[in-house]
Amino acid sequence: MENIGFIAAFLTTVSFVPQAIMVIKTKDTKGISLGMYSLFVAGVFLWVVYGYFIQDMAILIANIITFGFASIVLAYKIKYK
Amino acid sequence: MENIGFIAAFLTTVSFVPQAIMVIKTKDTKGISLGMYSLFVAGVFLWVVYGYFIQDMAILIANIITFGFASIVLAYKIKYK
Repeated sequence: MENIGFIAAFLTTVSFVPQAIMVIKTKDTKGISLGMYSLFVAGVFLWVVYGYFIQDMAILIANIITFGFASIVLAYKIKYK
Repeated sequence: MENIGFIAAFLTTVSFVPQAIMVIKTKDTKGISLGMYSLFVAGVFLWVVYGYFIQDMAILIANIITFGFASIVLAYKIKYK
């Protein structure tokens, strides 16, 4: 069962990589929701804080990586809206 | 500390609502990555399976909701690419 959680965490974490690459290459952010990435980046930041305080390395590391890629998308959305 | 986890889960779950509304209204999915939503929806589905098997209601419910909204974005991306 832990393996399913591990694969789930891996997929939801790496999923933001192709989106980040896409906005960097195309700078096309018209279809991307500023509301979504504002809420999402704030939420992932709180997951990092939560993972740090409860000392859960899986939550901490997965969310630091997600925070990085989702922040790239948010930054491009703000710059190229 | 649990409150931070609760707020984090709430934010990352509801963040997909504005994106789903946006694609429904505009049908503009050009800037949205098919790779991202394919990996993400698959990952969230596994989170639902994981939450069900470990009987964690927070993981289960948050991911069922996220699965619904992220699936809408994926479906529109496939239909209006």
